[in-house]
Amino acid sequence: MALMVKKFGGSSVANAERVFNVARIITEDYKKGNDVVVVVSAQGDTTDDLIAKAKEINPLSPSKREMDMLLSAGEQISISLLAMAIEKLGFPVVSLLGWQAGFITDTKHSLARIKKVNVERLKNELDKHNIIIVAGFQGINKYDDITTLGRGGSDTSAVALAATLKADVCQIYTDVDGVYTADPRKVTGTKKMDEITYDEMLELATLGAQVLNNRSVEMAKKYNVELEVLSSLENKPGTIVKEKVKMEKMLIKGVACDKDIILVSIVGLKDTPGVAFKVFNELGKKNVNIDIILQSVGRDGTKDITFTAPVNQKDEVLEALENIRPLLNFDKVVVNDKIGKVSIVGAGMETHPGVASKMFEALSDAGINIHMISTSEIKISVLIDEEYCNKAVQYVHDAFID
Amino acid sequence: MALMVKKFGGSSVANAERVFNVARIITEDYKKGNDVVVVVSAQGDTTDDLIAKAKEINPLSPSKREMDMLLSAGEQISISLLAMAIEKLGFPVVSLLGWQAGFITDTKHSLARIKKVNVERLKNELDKHNIIIVAGFQGINKYDDITTLGRGGSDTSAVALAATLKADVCQIYTDVDGVYTADPRKVTGTKKMDEITYDEMLELATLGAQVLNNRSVEMAKKYNVELEVLSSLENKPGTIVKEKVKMEKMLIKGVACDKDIILVSIVGLKDTPGVAFKVFNELGKKNVNIDIILQSVGRDGTKDITFTAPVNQKDEVLEALENIRPLLNFDKVVVNDKIGKVSIVGAGMETHPGVASKMFEALSDAGINIHMISTSEIKISVLIDEEYCNKAVQYVHDAFID
Repeated sequence: MALMVKKFGGSSVANAERVFNVARIITEDYKKGNDVVVVVSAQGDTTDDLIAKAKEINPLSPSKREMDMLLSAGEQISISLLAMAIEKLGFPVVSLLGWQAGFITDTKHSLARIKKVNVERLKNELDKHNIIIVAGFQGINKYDDITTLGRGGSDTSAVALAATLKADVCQIYTDVDGVYTADPRKVTGTKKMDEITYDEMLELATLGAQVLNNRSVEMAKKYNVELEVLSSLENKPGTIVKEKVKMEKMLIKGVACDKDIILVSIVGLKDTPGVAFKVFNELGKKNVNIDIILQSVGRDGTKDITFTAPVNQKDEVLEALENIRPLLNFDKVVVNDKIGKVSIVGAGMETHPGVASKMFEALSDAGINIHMISTSEIKISVLIDEEYCNKAVQYVHDAFID
Repeated sequence: MALMVKKFGGSSVANAERVFNVARIITEDYKKGNDVVVVVSAQGDTTDDLIAKAKEINPLSPSKREMDMLLSAGEQISISLLAMAIEKLGFPVVSLLGWQAGFITDTKHSLARIKKVNVERLKNELDKHNIIIVAGFQGINKYDDITTLGRGGSDTSAVALAATLKADVCQIYTDVDGVYTADPRKVTGTKKMDEITYDEMLELATLGAQVLNNRSVEMAKKYNVELEVLSSLENKPGTIVKEKVKMEKMLIKGVACDKDIILVSIVGLKDTPGVAFKVFNELGKKNVNIDIILQSVGRDGTKDITFTAPVNQKDEVLEALENIRPLLNFDKVVVNDKIGKVSIVGAGMETHPGVASKMFEALSDAGINIHMISTSEIKISVLIDEEYCNKAVQYVHDAFID
């Protein structure tokens, strides 16, 4: 008898057939005597359909409060349908919205953070031996207004529930059966991992291997919630994400590629102290997610600063730089959006020299030119031309994983 | 400066264009310095679409609790879209769900009754000079579960708000521009009335002239809330519904027709005291809505009881009668579902003799046979063959209204 938290994404409940499939997974575990709390996202394209409705009304800037009101209706539909399917199978069930399940967030609409989960109602329903279906992605703030946690927020909802309820397991069901060494749809010879550490998973998540939302992994790490990523369509074990994993032969855990970035160069900055601070302080104010930074010496006592940012924050980047142009008086800003980032991740690389050179060798074999390099304890990233990304991932993957 | 409650039905907000039309009606009155609280139903076919989704999961009997959870998402979508449109026009606005607006109901899911409206949040938002958009049709019960008020419940939400906030006016916007003497789509020569009493409106509502939900009219009468029924598409006065109206020449206010009824005869009941009580007590337990009742003498010391009921309660009627068959030992039950009820309504008929005979004369002129007759202070109903309903309404209308 365990307390299980299970999370199902939108594609897992996209239609009636899939809803029943999920209902059966849930009731199988309930029948064995487990307590089951389930977090569900909105069905299939519901969220996109609702966004389209909002854009019809206000293409540019509907308020985030009203967007949260609108979008949170999506999970309300999916939780009630899933509860009906479980009722149909003959099991006691209750669906709960974010506020009913006790999710209290801060007031930042559309990207709220969970402050706490008041579990009285949940415990009450568990005492009644009800299966509980909770709307993911949503909560309420101190004004009793509905908030949402941003895309992928249902993963975070699940981890928060698992942490607060001290669940024995937190299973994240998706349409893949685990975490792979690279995207199996694009790379041949990929392998599913049995285990991976939080840190490795975090690096992979931020690199565009979108199996798990990275805020949820951060929270799982913080509260030491063991995650399992597994398929809702196949009945087999997935990949466990936890603090420490047993030593494996595999030096690296994954090869990932992120094409949704831009490379921005500020050319001709004065070479005086505080310049970099001013640049990145201004970008920080706009919440721009800076990744790799390179500073190089320019001509005539000037310097250049180059960095990567998400392509969907291009406007914020250009605005921020425009704001500080009068102050810093640089020559120009150059934006390259035909850039890709290929990374390898693995906790093992720290203790194994030669990983970087092996990666560079693979890229050299593939005839691919490297623009920039960035390394951390468990990650090596290189920037290359976007068009070579898939080829680069395949060559690097072949070099490390057999 | 008045406090106005306005209610818009689903067809009034069916698409982006209509949402903006409604937004303009609202902001026009707000600009004049009025406080405006708006109640909205779900967009166009949303409720039907959601019901279809539920039927895919459980065609027969999804629990009413989960149906309420599902259906209440409909208004959540429409209130946020309408709020976005008002924001776009540049006015301060906030959308509120039933529970946020303070609607507390009893625990009867799918047909809940409003127990009270906690107006703190509403008053708060009015103090901030916000236009308030409230989700109609929904509330929460004492367990914090979402309830719905049944179809047409948004009218009731609006009247409850108007009563609790002591609004100066409660305007019910529909796709017709007021209450007519008969259905203008089916009868020629109909007239729009400027005013009508609550009682007249109630009789018309129960007779299938579905301009206003009758629970809302009952509540308006109880709390003396003056209603106006008007069109969201045309900018002109509608029909006022109130306690007393000025005397008009028109003897009758409306001719209506209800085809959704069945005529049930219980043949060969023993002619002993208490038989009728047993019959209608059992029907009452099933919540069957009995209208006209006729008792007649049968053969050999037996009697027959005949009554009308809504066609959608046929199963309950037959079950109830089956339950008491062992007790009462009657011969048989005969159901006629090819029956229609034509009624005239008007507070004036009480003081004017000859109204009934004028109605019967009109039907005689039309060559239509009358099966049963029922009268109240302000209504006369006759049962006829369903196929003659439209003809009957036209002849009766012509006889009274010129």
